[in-house]
Amino acid sequence: MAANLDFSSDNAAGATPEVLSAVADANHGTAMAYGADDWTARLEAAFADLFETDIAVFPVATGTAANALALSALTPPHGAVYCHEFAHIAVDECGAPELYSGGAKLISLTGAHGRIGAGTLEGALDGAGWGVQHHVQPAAVSLTQLTEDGTVYTADQVAELCGIAKARGLAVHMDGARFANALASLGCTPADITWRAGVDVLSFGGTKNGALAAEAVVFFDRDKAQDFLYRRKRGGHLFSKMRFLSAQLLAMLEGGRWLDWAGHANAMAARLADGLTALDGITLAHPVDGNIVFARVPETLIDRLRDGGAVFHLWPYADGPTIRLVTSFATRADDVDALIGLAASRLSGA
Amino acid sequence: MAANLDFSSDNAAGATPEVLSAVADANHGTAMAYGADDWTARLEAAFADLFETDIAVFPVATGTAANALALSALTPPHGAVYCHEFAHIAVDECGAPELYSGGAKLISLTGAHGRIGAGTLEGALDGAGWGVQHHVQPAAVSLTQLTEDGTVYTADQVAELCGIAKARGLAVHMDGARFANALASLGCTPADITWRAGVDVLSFGGTKNGALAAEAVVFFDRDKAQDFLYRRKRGGHLFSKMRFLSAQLLAMLEGGRWLDWAGHANAMAARLADGLTALDGITLAHPVDGNIVFARVPETLIDRLRDGGAVFHLWPYADGPTIRLVTSFATRADDVDALIGLAASRLSGA
Amino acid sequence: MAANLDFSSDNAAGATPEVLSAVADANHGTAMAYGADDWTARLEAAFADLFETDIAVFPVATGTAANALALSALTPPHGAVYCHEFAHIAVDECGAPELYSGGAKLISLTGAHGRIGAGTLEGALDGAGWGVQHHVQPAAVSLTQLTEDGTVYTADQVAELCGIAKARGLAVHMDGARFANALASLGCTPADITWRAGVDVLSFGGTKNGALAAEAVVFFDRDKAQDFLYRRKRGGHLFSKMRFLSAQLLAMLEGGRWLDWAGHANAMAARLADGLTALDGITLAHPVDGNIVFARVPETLIDRLRDGGAVFHLWPYADGPTIRLVTSFATRADDVDALIGLAASRLSGA
Amino acid sequence: MAANLDFSSDNAAGATPEVLSAVADANHGTAMAYGADDWTARLEAAFADLFETDIAVFPVATGTAANALALSALTPPHGAVYCHEFAHIAVDECGAPELYSGGAKLISLTGAHGRIGAGTLEGALDGAGWGVQHHVQPAAVSLTQLTEDGTVYTADQVAELCGIAKARGLAVHMDGARFANALASLGCTPADITWRAGVDVLSFGGTKNGALAAEAVVFFDRDKAQDFLYRRKRGGHLFSKMRFLSAQLLAMLEGGRWLDWAGHANAMAARLADGLTALDGITLAHPVDGNIVFARVPETLIDRLRDGGAVFHLWPYADGPTIRLVTSFATRADDVDALIGLAASRLSGA
Repeated sequence: MAANLDFSSDNAAGATPEVLSAVADANHGTAMAYGADDWTARLEAAFADLFETDIAVFPVATGTAANALALSALTPPHGAVYCHEFAHIAVDECGAPELYSGGAKLISLTGAHGRIGAGTLEGALDGAGWGVQHHVQPAAVSLTQLTEDGTVYTADQVAELCGIAKARGLAVHMDGARFANALASLGCTPADITWRAGVDVLSFGGTKNGALAAEAVVFFDRDKAQDFLYRRKRGGHLFSKMRFLSAQLLAMLEGGRWLDWAGHANAMAARLADGLTALDGITLAHPVDGNIVFARVPETLIDRLRDGGAVFHLWPYADGPTIRLVTSFATRADDVDALIGLAASRLSGA
Repeated sequence: MAANLDFSSDNAAGATPEVLSAVADANHGTAMAYGADDWTARLEAAFADLFETDIAVFPVATGTAANALALSALTPPHGAVYCHEFAHIAVDECGAPELYSGGAKLISLTGAHGRIGAGTLEGALDGAGWGVQHHVQPAAVSLTQLTEDGTVYTADQVAELCGIAKARGLAVHMDGARFANALASLGCTPADITWRAGVDVLSFGGTKNGALAAEAVVFFDRDKAQDFLYRRKRGGHLFSKMRFLSAQLLAMLEGGRWLDWAGHANAMAARLADGLTALDGITLAHPVDGNIVFARVPETLIDRLRDGGAVFHLWPYADGPTIRLVTSFATRADDVDALIGLAASRLSGA
Repeated sequence: MAANLDFSSDNAAGATPEVLSAVADANHGTAMAYGADDWTARLEAAFADLFETDIAVFPVATGTAANALALSALTPPHGAVYCHEFAHIAVDECGAPELYSGGAKLISLTGAHGRIGAGTLEGALDGAGWGVQHHVQPAAVSLTQLTEDGTVYTADQVAELCGIAKARGLAVHMDGARFANALASLGCTPADITWRAGVDVLSFGGTKNGALAAEAVVFFDRDKAQDFLYRRKRGGHLFSKMRFLSAQLLAMLEGGRWLDWAGHANAMAARLADGLTALDGITLAHPVDGNIVFARVPETLIDRLRDGGAVFHLWPYADGPTIRLVTSFATRADDVDALIGLAASRLSGA
Repeated sequence: MAANLDFSSDNAAGATPEVLSAVADANHGTAMAYGADDWTARLEAAFADLFETDIAVFPVATGTAANALALSALTPPHGAVYCHEFAHIAVDECGAPELYSGGAKLISLTGAHGRIGAGTLEGALDGAGWGVQHHVQPAAVSLTQLTEDGTVYTADQVAELCGIAKARGLAVHMDGARFANALASLGCTPADITWRAGVDVLSFGGTKNGALAAEAVVFFDRDKAQDFLYRRKRGGHLFSKMRFLSAQLLAMLEGGRWLDWAGHANAMAARLADGLTALDGITLAHPVDGNIVFARVPETLIDRLRDGGAVFHLWPYADGPTIRLVTSFATRADDVDALIGLAASRLSGA
């Protein structure tokens, strides 16, 4: 089998065989529509086990839906949501949080390697014009785990940011499109980096980790989920044949597969980072904690890699020529080695 | 195999084997995300063939998303959308059209058997306060085909309503959640009851007709689709692994399968209607043009049918006790006959 | 002075001299902007006295703003607001409630003479699909006092409707654009037909009763007013020179002037109704409880009255030719008599 | 008369006698409501004369309403509006632009002294992700004239920014809450710094320049104003007694009074700046082009000025202790000199 040099994104991969089988297995007979089916009933229990606490779970099909709907439950229309300046919700969702929240404002915060700095968050909140009618009012903080720069927040870092938020009455959302990759990297429990650290709502990602299309909005604070059913429906995100969403998520959780898949993707990224940085002229823009490698490369190399068949994104939010390479459950060591080999040959040919 | 007495809805059925196979077939290797894949590229051509005209097609996963997004492209926030009082967009979407349009108003019109009457539409439009700043301004008409009462609009009826709308500058949307059932019933071409009759945008339903979750928003007027990409994305309805949506729709269209499946569902509904109305005390509330039977039954029969294992909805929008029975691609003649038999036995036992 | 035959609306009148003087009196020196001025500070006390209870008051400049902002505090975006089918919020505000609520749905209820019938409200609420995710959820009832048909709700009628709403957890809004006229007609206290009867928020009208432009949103339940400051500001309804709004309202309340003005308008309407109905061929479409007369007239009379200089609206929501005549603080008995005389002469000339 | 040391804002001043008289003069007899009156009819002609071109004018009562409504006519919900990071629309309107636009995103740009830098705008637009569905799409630029830092854009500077915007298809809005002060400072014609330079819509400020509450949304491109009537109404910003808004604006324009008033305010600010900077330890944070002085002062002086009766804002968006002092039509030379004297005495007393 020829090497696959497509490192454009983890969502360029298909679904795992286990996910596909689960969908096929769920396709027998009729089932009550809109979530009143057996698979969805089992889902809440499975997530409660995973997170070691009582939760409310709502399957949706896209990460943007999960994020925007979750945030809409945390902020009034006149609220402010604090996030990293490169957060997916801020730059890659075409205004979905604004739509679902009725016009709340995202406040972008800087921070090295994709992480919001505690001091930066504190400073922003302290200067926020609390109680002044001219200003949007601080309502929520959104953290991305794995961050958009491919790094993790440790449990302590999450707890510190949540502490700052909670002390001021803000809710905390975690965009976990790559939650599995972060967890596989950190080696802690799901609870440790979510509700135990202060997170109220998690967008639990499935699609980037081997699902066809499945995410779960997980509320650790049931009070905040009170009207989520209606929010999801009016967003057009209530699936009639919900069993097929729930079956995907159940298949992921079963036997810890989701962490195995993410762990594999992470290992492939580490292998890729090691191989590339062993070459002259290639360095890392960010630590590689999960399944994303940001490699600073000689500008001439970019086209040469593409000519050699490699697929990836040139990263716009970086100093100097930087390419983003993403691995997935489906990435093989051969694929990684082939890309490293290609880079080596094109560098030497320069 | 035991008879399946679940007639609650066509979305209680699973997916057809052909749809599942197509998803599995699409699951090989990587593919560009967000619609830049081969399956999606083929989709526009397939729909253009089907509708015999140039079109723009946007796959989404739910009918509510298809409808609300389509309408948002046709009305300003201060616009009015005219629809039947029992239209799905008016009563079953929890305000999705209002969310996506930014607050446009749905104007409910009466009409026998789920169809908007031409005179009723004309009267409503004539009294609409055109150009008066105090009033929302007429922007669009939405027709449901198959209607919520299980009836069809003929091509002439569609054309008449579209004519009234077009003469006054309104756009026309068709909610085709059961478009296949209507078409299988009418025996005309897809073009005849859409753009040739004056429809601008169609919500082409797949989910109720054997897909896992796949609908297509079809624009016959490309100008109106100009910013649909952004609307879809900010609604959270852009799938990263779009190929799996497109593959479902392609599998449906291939060789006219979608009409075969809908035709089967219709035949089962006809068989059911015939069988039930042959019994004393059961009559039809509406003509059975597609795959939905509204049966007026003795009140005592309702619980007896349920005790016998039948699953269905008691219909709230009817005079006298009325049950709704929906068939699908998966309904077998044995299922239908078993329900008729159950009704017969419980009626006689009364 | 020639008779003024303009009975088009009470907002066609200017401001009372007392209101104008109060504005001029407030125009000395600087004052803290945005409501931190002395006039606004006095306003809350004045309204608390008037309503014999603790309240929160927010001046705005238009009735549409008052209504839409008030409702936005009572309903989530997925909520339903029940109102009369001819309610100003439903037909004359171009979708303002939808804008401010983020897309909530107005449910129109029928009822004779502009009043929502208790049974109609109960029926609508009982069939509302409570807790079902496909349906918008009942959130509020809005009553108009004086109604759009010129009638009053008695305190008992208000209490009955509020009781139905409250028993089901809904909040109650009162559109009091002509609250003064209703109160002058009923002869009860402001408290009796508002919070004592169950009203949570009142749009207290000033503009139609002699102000330049001044309304007050009055919250009897302070909890519901928690974020109203932000809602008002983001709607662009926070006046920097708030003293000029507050001064108008204070001038109205002073010495009960507002009720005197409304009482005068009501008396003029009664005189007009008496005079017109004494003529052959003119009857009343609705009881005249306040300052609005709906007169059923021979169709030929309409143009003749206009030819004679009368200004009024032909009413679209009526059976048979019906004209609406509105009186105000500024209407003189001579104006009324002149109109009656004109009608008499044109009828006899027919 | 004692000196008035309130330099908190130009909206702390009342109205000019001329404005008050005009309102009183307009208060005779009845007038057609909602803008169909003589004053409003004259307004469009008066503004057309002033701007030497055909225009559409819409009076509203607040600057936030003017800005948010104007922007809503220029951007779709998925659009981006570029503005200075300290722009009123971005930081002082509690999300009004987001409400009225249906969730569009404000993109903040840096720039010295409150002015957007041409290069900064170009850079932001070049990197905007045009045509990429994940990103909001550039729709408009908003300039503030006088800027929030009290400086002007010259006609050339406006033209340069408009050129950059127009070359890329963006519309241009000007927030002219202090347009009069800018114009009085620049000495050019209103046309020169608006439509001739490329501005499409102007929020023409009246309230800060001697009106009770009156602004005008001025469209130089009538096509963009097509549905503004409805937008204004559904925002609750349509005044029934519109004549009182229009009369204020007419009184301002008459005989160029508005420029006289603004010129006076500017002269007072210049006098204040001169006096303060003659003192040791006080410097200007920004050039004083209009009626706002940003003075860098010794930190100890701030409380001492307040103890002496001075009223002003400590400015949060500045390096080091900076106070904002605003003059108005009502500021007298004695007031200015008194403040300078107070500062001198408190500095020397330090």
